[in-house]
Amino acid sequence: MRDVAVIGVGMNPKWGELWEMSIRTLFTEAALAALDDAGVDHIEAMYVGCMTGGLFVGQEHLGSMLADYLGTGPIPSLRVESACASGGLAVRQAFIDVACGMHDIVLAGGVEKMLDVDGAAATYALASAADQEYECFHGVTFPGLYAMIARAHMHKYGTTREQLAMVSVKNHRHGSKNPRAQFPFETTVEGVINSVAVADPLTIMDCSPITDGAAAVIVCPLEMAREKFKNHPIVQITGSGHGTDTIALADREDLTWLKAVEVSGKGAFEMAGKTPEDIDVCEVHDCFTIAEICVSEALGFFEPGKGGPAVEAGETTYGGKIPINTSGGLKSKGHPVGATGVAQILEIVEQLRGDSGERQVEGAKVGMTQNMGGSGGSSVCHILEVK
Amino acid sequence: MRDVAVIGVGMNPKWGELWEMSIRTLFTEAALAALDDAGVDHIEAMYVGCMTGGLFVGQEHLGSMLADYLGTGPIPSLRVESACASGGLAVRQAFIDVACGMHDIVLAGGVEKMLDVDGAAATYALASAADQEYECFHGVTFPGLYAMIARAHMHKYGTTREQLAMVSVKNHRHGSKNPRAQFPFETTVEGVINSVAVADPLTIMDCSPITDGAAAVIVCPLEMAREKFKNHPIVQITGSGHGTDTIALADREDLTWLKAVEVSGKGAFEMAGKTPEDIDVCEVHDCFTIAEICVSEALGFFEPGKGGPAVEAGETTYGGKIPINTSGGLKSKGHPVGATGVAQILEIVEQLRGDSGERQVEGAKVGMTQNMGGSGGSSVCHILEVK
Repeated sequence: MRDVAVIGVGMNPKWGELWEMSIRTLFTEAALAALDDAGVDHIEAMYVGCMTGGLFVGQEHLGSMLADYLGTGPIPSLRVESACASGGLAVRQAFIDVACGMHDIVLAGGVEKMLDVDGAAATYALASAADQEYECFHGVTFPGLYAMIARAHMHKYGTTREQLAMVSVKNHRHGSKNPRAQFPFETTVEGVINSVAVADPLTIMDCSPITDGAAAVIVCPLEMAREKFKNHPIVQITGSGHGTDTIALADREDLTWLKAVEVSGKGAFEMAGKTPEDIDVCEVHDCFTIAEICVSEALGFFEPGKGGPAVEAGETTYGGKIPINTSGGLKSKGHPVGATGVAQILEIVEQLRGDSGERQVEGAKVGMTQNMGGSGGSSVCHILEVK
Repeated sequence: MRDVAVIGVGMNPKWGELWEMSIRTLFTEAALAALDDAGVDHIEAMYVGCMTGGLFVGQEHLGSMLADYLGTGPIPSLRVESACASGGLAVRQAFIDVACGMHDIVLAGGVEKMLDVDGAAATYALASAADQEYECFHGVTFPGLYAMIARAHMHKYGTTREQLAMVSVKNHRHGSKNPRAQFPFETTVEGVINSVAVADPLTIMDCSPITDGAAAVIVCPLEMAREKFKNHPIVQITGSGHGTDTIALADREDLTWLKAVEVSGKGAFEMAGKTPEDIDVCEVHDCFTIAEICVSEALGFFEPGKGGPAVEAGETTYGGKIPINTSGGLKSKGHPVGATGVAQILEIVEQLRGDSGERQVEGAKVGMTQNMGGSGGSSVCHILEVK
């Protein structure tokens, strides 16, 4: 396997309710930004992460359509999907492609155009990431599934309602420094707890939003990056891990433990030869506040049950043990599902380049991403390092 | 890159209107058949081809769900999609994964559960493979798109209505020997021409059907296959090619030329070090009769415009230049879109093993598959050889 570097990153100037943009213009804007950042004028292959172009805008076959619209010529281009982990898996498949030697310069992008449908249709589309026959058919939706995880975590470990809210407060504080964030405002613990109830104990300020957006990264062999692409410090993908779990929550032995996250994290740590202690900055999948707490435990940053107290103690922000979601996370930056995992890579690459401005983690040399599908049915992690 | 072999193949005993089976039971039946054929009891990673579980059955996230239902444990598993080429691309991504050295024993499967929705919903779902904004929105569906290709081919080259029908007659004759085929009956040129009109000049007997079905193959490094898996003659994937084209037909320079097929074919031929003359048996994407004619030209089996006369002269059946679609093709065997490209591999593997019974092409040593997305917006080819 060849070593692989990220040489370009791009996303839309701001995520949110982008009524004037379609799925193709969203993607193309991000892809062109990544090409420009890398300083390349062509790609040899493309991987597109998108959860459900079919249910949101009646458009599948995004590999062909987006390569066409981007003007790549007749290159290999396809879509990969694993619900909200689709973006992270587009990056992983591009990594495997370049590592294998199939192609040299490969674009991994993600996109979701979510706001062209009404709330009920969006809820139906998102629920297709859960078990249609054994969960959705009976009426459960994602806030309900994560609310059950939250209740189980509170029951088993004593995690408090306030600790859940603190995840949102922290991520909004981080996101308030991110000009690309959909909701770059700050909030308070009281503001979170007193916002509209969605699925007890979760309120709307515990939930990531519905978002239009796209992101893209360009990868190539490390040696090529060193020789040809000197715009930026070299960032290598040193670890990649991918795992799955039962899709239905009811089939898990322990609702509070995200096995797919554990497996994907171990895979990435093992490949990179790193441990949780080595990570300077991390983007994780905070689709709901409880998710960030569970992920921080499953990745090994904190002992099981200690994720809530860690947030309360400030261990997951600047100056703490591990700054998590400096971008604002899904909660503040927005969550166009197929794009999220790619934008996580962008945030870490910018951190490792030292380009994160007010959000910069000083001296960050090793970063990590964790992108999740469904209620933990799949997860993909990457470790990136300045070389 | 490591050499890669196919060590197991499986599909449902019969494709068709399988009312008693769901997307998960369809897939699991095929996957277990492939595992049994290979003689392996575990896999390390899985790629699932499916066009639109979202629009057909409200289920995305098939990587997680199907790994869960198959009982694989928490392995990497994801879905790849490129409309009707999804299955072929699942095989290609598994090939890249093993060639890269990421995993040793990988399952590539495909599935589509199409008959749980009515005809209008199925037409809408399938149309998501075309350009939603510039084609579907204006009312065109796939029979209409391929009818335009057919008219252009007839106008440019003098291809006759009878030659189109002969593709269907041949494939039904082949399929009549295939116990897995959805429609294993024979037909006649008159029977095709006089069947119900769909989009002039195409009648329903020029169109592949809507089908429930799944297929799966197991791949591993060639060296491992030689050492450990001796159930069958060794079949190596020696070539893999993937190409794209404009998704919208109106953007093509020449409606009769499938550039994605040409590019994917050249990619596979180049990797394998083969030419069209070397191929003993080929499965191609006959979603409509005209498609098989255009593909046979774009792959280089016949000169542009000579695909129709070649069918008429018997060049694409037993004893001819290149027997095409010995399985019955999409037309007779059925077309569960995500499964089709995987089942093409199965047919070629069985031919190369000498296991095709009444459909056997005597002495077949080199086989090829071509799987297409949309109206030629994407295409993937594989060349397989007995080693």
